[in-house]
Amino acid sequence: MDILISEVGPRDGLQSLKRIMPTADKHRWIAALAASGLAEIEVGSFVSPRALPQMADCAEVVKEALKLPGLRVVALVPNLKYAELAFAAGAHVITIPVSVSEPHSISNIRKTHAEIIADVRAIVALRNARFPATKVDAGLSTAFGCTIQGVVAEDDVLRMAATMAECGVDTVNLADTVGYANPAQVKRLFTRLRQEVGARSGAAHLHNTRGQGLANVVAALDAGVTTFDSSQGGIGGCPYAPGATGNIVTEDLVFLLESMGLSTGVDLDRLMAARAVLSDALPGETLYGYVPQAGLPKGFAPARRAA
Amino acid sequence: MDILISEVGPRDGLQSLKRIMPTADKHRWIAALAASGLAEIEVGSFVSPRALPQMADCAEVVKEALKLPGLRVVALVPNLKYAELAFAAGAHVITIPVSVSEPHSISNIRKTHAEIIADVRAIVALRNARFPATKVDAGLSTAFGCTIQGVVAEDDVLRMAATMAECGVDTVNLADTVGYANPAQVKRLFTRLRQEVGARSGAAHLHNTRGQGLANVVAALDAGVTTFDSSQGGIGGCPYAPGATGNIVTEDLVFLLESMGLSTGVDLDRLMAARAVLSDALPGETLYGYVPQAGLPKGFAPARRAA
Repeated sequence: MDILISEVGPRDGLQSLKRIMPTADKHRWIAALAASGLAEIEVGSFVSPRALPQMADCAEVVKEALKLPGLRVVALVPNLKYAELAFAAGAHVITIPVSVSEPHSISNIRKTHAEIIADVRAIVALRNARFPATKVDAGLSTAFGCTIQGVVAEDDVLRMAATMAECGVDTVNLADTVGYANPAQVKRLFTRLRQEVGARSGAAHLHNTRGQGLANVVAALDAGVTTFDSSQGGIGGCPYAPGATGNIVTEDLVFLLESMGLSTGVDLDRLMAARAVLSDALPGETLYGYVPQAGLPKGFAPARRAA
Repeated sequence: MDILISEVGPRDGLQSLKRIMPTADKHRWIAALAASGLAEIEVGSFVSPRALPQMADCAEVVKEALKLPGLRVVALVPNLKYAELAFAAGAHVITIPVSVSEPHSISNIRKTHAEIIADVRAIVALRNARFPATKVDAGLSTAFGCTIQGVVAEDDVLRMAATMAECGVDTVNLADTVGYANPAQVKRLFTRLRQEVGARSGAAHLHNTRGQGLANVVAALDAGVTTFDSSQGGIGGCPYAPGATGNIVTEDLVFLLESMGLSTGVDLDRLMAARAVLSDALPGETLYGYVPQAGLPKGFAPARRAA
């Protein structure tokens, strides 16, 4: 596999919807996604069930997802209390959102930078002491700009990335939370990220809010990024950033990469089958994506799998 | 100006619609597009008014567009007979579609390769004899794949490009007529085009049928392409390729380029004003584009204009 796609729909997508997907439907959808060849899925977040009732069944969803052979199960947590639940549930990867824009951090999870950094340190300490096999990632949100603050300085992003590495997280991901990124910026920032944190340099989480999602993927590939977040049907986005919906669409991303000769391990027909499961579970919900509408080109051949 | 955007909406867009835009509305829309800073507009095609009644007023539209200061006026022609009308009307640039896929050429304009090459030679000879100031371009359609033929060999594209250069056209453009292109292919093919025809290497005409349009722009930029076709509101596509609608959207393209620091000379506010003119002239018609919906990022600054 040349590129790892980390499917975030069951977390990022479902927590943005008003309705709550029944647990059994989540199981079915996640199983269908895994069956398409997606090797990593962010299945939910451990958060207050009052704030996000869509995620109240996260422990059960993680437990079921752990039964799927070969799947790496990711869960998002906002703080130490919920990280404990995620560790206990057995998630393979725990990801912590850390906003580079402090006003966004305060508005989103009511934490200053000092507070969220202290949380990250405490979560890493807990992992080191009791769950050494679990990976801890930091996802730097608003890394490309913020609807509250506006421009986010690249030096601030790099400084926060260095702090996260110093805290002991395994991977630092960069997120275009509000769809502000452009390809020149994406290439520059991921290049600098690798210089700053080396092998801890992680995934690109890109949005399509301004139609630039896949253009930014091309730039990230140029900078050596090999992991991309996306959501089936493009569901989700950032519920706290007004108008900033729009994850890049897994179906279109897989087509992009496979047609470029980069293997994703994902079978497009099976991915469409998973889309049907999602569509059945969310009747009337808008699913995005061009490839599902237009179909594959005549004579299309996916990338050759590495032996 | 770093990048030239060639707006094709008044030709490619309007000829794909069932309705006919009144001539006065075309004048108004083209004037608004030019006022936004678009320096080149494909204003129509000289073709059989029975086949495409949407274009029956092309001579009048060209005549009016020629009054707009600084605008380069482009007209499409399928053969020598209609090229004579385009030259007589005074278009600055005459563009001839030449399909690399012969089955597509036959299905589209009922001409074999030998016939269309003979046409191009005759048009260049006429230009040389009587209209030396007029530019003649060839647009190689289906250069990235064909809904009839499937895969189109890159060597076939380069061979046709070389033939066009040998015929004496000024510029050879490559078109992803049916939305099959991927960034790796775009970068490779435009790089080879420049090697093959040097300074005659021209524009990228990309479609967004599978959501890959702007991703392909990034790849074309990497290969040194400096002219891009697009249409306001994404109207148009190829009427002869079923399901292959979807020009890339001028509004989103301008945002992409300007946010990357590449000056287009286009003012986004005035471009939105032109979109309002289009929208008024085509009530109920779907206009595409993400930036018109999402708006500009907080703190957005367009690229600096070259002195």
